[in-house]
Amino acid sequence: MSKKITIVGAGLVGSLLSIYLAKRGYHVNVFERRPDMRKAKTMAGKSINLALSDRGWKGLEGVGIADEIRKIAIPMYGRAIHHKDGSTAYQPYGKDNQAIYSVSRAEINMRLMDLAEQQPNVEIHFSERCTTIERNKLNAHFENAESKKTSVVQSDLLFGADGAFAASRLNMQLTSDLFEYNQHYIEAGYKELIIPAGENGSFLLEKNALHIWPRGSFMMIALPNMDGNFTCTLFLPFEGEKSFANLKTPEQIKAFFETEFADAIPLMPTYIDDFIKNPTSSLVTVKCFPWTFDNKIGLIGDAAHAIVPFYGQGMNCGFEDCVVLNDLIEKHDSASNEVKNFDTVWAKILSEYKTLRKPDADAIADLAIMNFIEMRDKTADPKFLLQKKIEAGFSKKYPDKWIPLYSMVTYSPDIRYSKAFNEGQRQESIMQKVMAIPEIEKKWDTEEVENEILKYL
Amino acid sequence: MSKKITIVGAGLVGSLLSIYLAKRGYHVNVFERRPDMRKAKTMAGKSINLALSDRGWKGLEGVGIADEIRKIAIPMYGRAIHHKDGSTAYQPYGKDNQAIYSVSRAEINMRLMDLAEQQPNVEIHFSERCTTIERNKLNAHFENAESKKTSVVQSDLLFGADGAFAASRLNMQLTSDLFEYNQHYIEAGYKELIIPAGENGSFLLEKNALHIWPRGSFMMIALPNMDGNFTCTLFLPFEGEKSFANLKTPEQIKAFFETEFADAIPLMPTYIDDFIKNPTSSLVTVKCFPWTFDNKIGLIGDAAHAIVPFYGQGMNCGFEDCVVLNDLIEKHDSASNEVKNFDTVWAKILSEYKTLRKPDADAIADLAIMNFIEMRDKTADPKFLLQKKIEAGFSKKYPDKWIPLYSMVTYSPDIRYSKAFNEGQRQESIMQKVMAIPEIEKKWDTEEVENEILKYL
Repeated sequence: MSKKITIVGAGLVGSLLSIYLAKRGYHVNVFERRPDMRKAKTMAGKSINLALSDRGWKGLEGVGIADEIRKIAIPMYGRAIHHKDGSTAYQPYGKDNQAIYSVSRAEINMRLMDLAEQQPNVEIHFSERCTTIERNKLNAHFENAESKKTSVVQSDLLFGADGAFAASRLNMQLTSDLFEYNQHYIEAGYKELIIPAGENGSFLLEKNALHIWPRGSFMMIALPNMDGNFTCTLFLPFEGEKSFANLKTPEQIKAFFETEFADAIPLMPTYIDDFIKNPTSSLVTVKCFPWTFDNKIGLIGDAAHAIVPFYGQGMNCGFEDCVVLNDLIEKHDSASNEVKNFDTVWAKILSEYKTLRKPDADAIADLAIMNFIEMRDKTADPKFLLQKKIEAGFSKKYPDKWIPLYSMVTYSPDIRYSKAFNEGQRQESIMQKVMAIPEIEKKWDTEEVENEILKYL
Repeated sequence: MSKKITIVGAGLVGSLLSIYLAKRGYHVNVFERRPDMRKAKTMAGKSINLALSDRGWKGLEGVGIADEIRKIAIPMYGRAIHHKDGSTAYQPYGKDNQAIYSVSRAEINMRLMDLAEQQPNVEIHFSERCTTIERNKLNAHFENAESKKTSVVQSDLLFGADGAFAASRLNMQLTSDLFEYNQHYIEAGYKELIIPAGENGSFLLEKNALHIWPRGSFMMIALPNMDGNFTCTLFLPFEGEKSFANLKTPEQIKAFFETEFADAIPLMPTYIDDFIKNPTSSLVTVKCFPWTFDNKIGLIGDAAHAIVPFYGQGMNCGFEDCVVLNDLIEKHDSASNEVKNFDTVWAKILSEYKTLRKPDADAIADLAIMNFIEMRDKTADPKFLLQKKIEAGFSKKYPDKWIPLYSMVTYSPDIRYSKAFNEGQRQESIMQKVMAIPEIEKKWDTEEVENEILKYL
């Protein structure tokens, strides 16, 4: 008899995980709190566009669905910087062929649900809110949002993939001694706006770039969508001089945009209405531990480690969780799916999963916070840009000695986030010495500078 | 008409707060999850004895009940150190007349309940579990543990004083955007044991001291009780070589005590049975923010800031919360209790309360963690003891220039915890330089050393 697995949450990670587990022969039931978004699209105004990169692609390739997703993804090869004076600059994200891919959260989620449901042993149940999990019997309780009917689902294994404010995690927090938990909001919130498509669905900005309007303490970004428009996101402090608190009236909003984003205004005909209509959302980092309980409950994706979006790694990290888990299933050979083995095998898988993965989740959480400062502030700083240019030049000449941090995180799934973090710290301390060389602006591409870096390595 | 205030929790802080608010003329209803402990005493085996010190006394004096509590408190003038070789040492806690006071948590809580109920406008309702708080109407919902009846209590103001795992705080966490929350468990747990009274209720160890068996990575402490016994608490890592994980059988427990606490064994006839019977409990620090919501809900005591017990300040800090709040009531003159003023006055009180008090709660939380290391490890270190002796000597000569950190925290309610923390950091950096003086062991009480300290100040 096939073992039964319950997944709470049919978001990006829950949907992908269901495919991985289905391919292992398990019977998977996924319970999603919201209604089926494929029938009633109600995501507008609160979804940062996502940037799919190599860790995410690897996760999709692992179950053979990367090509399906590629159809809805737009490559972005670099950052297009929009300065306050209207001038622009371009910073490549990596080598020539390296890109991150803009996808709409709703689009990719719907595709993943379709692909999950194509598995004969996956069922997704919608509008089912998890109310409690009885740990001793592994009974998950759900309440249907429409009918208000409650149901109890017993299974052999349960994953909580229900996001940053996971009901599954809360259930564990309230029933576990020694549960470490931390939720932290950054001082900035975000609001979604839009640059609509031009005539015949044309792109009014460079299509294959991530656009940034860096303004020091805040920024706006824009990512391309398939139909020619761009999803814009304004990241801005809640309080203070330049803040959401001070942008309440159409006049205030207009004056702010005219000062800060003058070049964007002609592209954003509805920005004042959108600003008033769309919600202001917050950005949370959640760290917790452990991620597994009773050898048969696991947390995955944002439920285990919600991060801020500034490294474009939230979804990628969640997909990589699935890869790590799948590798451990492979390692411990639960593929046999024998009844006698199941409990001991999964005890090992979950134990290694949490130990192996936790430092990587912590690392990308911290990197994501740090990248907010880089994006909003440093991308407009000539000294920072010079530093990146020196690193890129050195890396090109000595690819074995130096992979830039961004490339490690984004294009190198074989390098763990925690390794990338440590290596990035080391690189930064070297580059601080290099940038302190007198007249570095003049001799940045000399052998002297190159030898200096080699000396420190 | 008198304004109504709901307090969730009739523990130490909830009970004291009810008296403060009653004396301001409010009608106070306190709802306690547990049954009335005065009727059914069921606290054994899981209660660190408490050390009442000056901040706590000030809180009691503020409503004229300090004398009542003094009747059940035993002064402890210093630490009695029990070394592994059986030798002992004594370290005074402050000046001659300065002491901290051992009280049983259950005893003081019951007295406070009695004193609260003596107020004509305080009612305590027992076995009432708070299930939810409707913020818009300030309706608190309760379920009675015995009858299972539910009730809804509307009031004008609500305080959550329901401890480290407060239902009231959880309610706020789940209904608030931007709520900062952190819970952290230290790696050690604790277990309660006992040294019974000798003949005729005599004390088998020095009565007026806090006894410590410091053993590096763990320790046992003992505090005197009114009836001649001592409550012992073993603080020990959960995992590792010397840990609760390795003390499962009577043989293991016996061998451990014979090695580590040989001098205590003759005083602890039931320690093996007690060790097996009593629970192993964990120690959590909770930090969160904000502490107030909607201008009419406040968190107080452990519900706002649970700390580990090693500075003996948990209760004292909670009582000081009441003093701070009372001072703010006084300042904003809500004493008039006029209907028209109530909302605006309390909005000011709660806003200042959270802003003023948060840094102090963070400071004592960190000091409490640091003091675990001091108690378990440094109290047995000759170099540390010398440092304390130098500080004490200097402080005696220059009382305006140097108040030892322990004294600031314990005997100086006029010095905020946050001030004490910063001053303590400064003192420690000075003392590190002093202790680095060559042959400091020989010249510790010379003018040279004194001048050295004066130089740094």
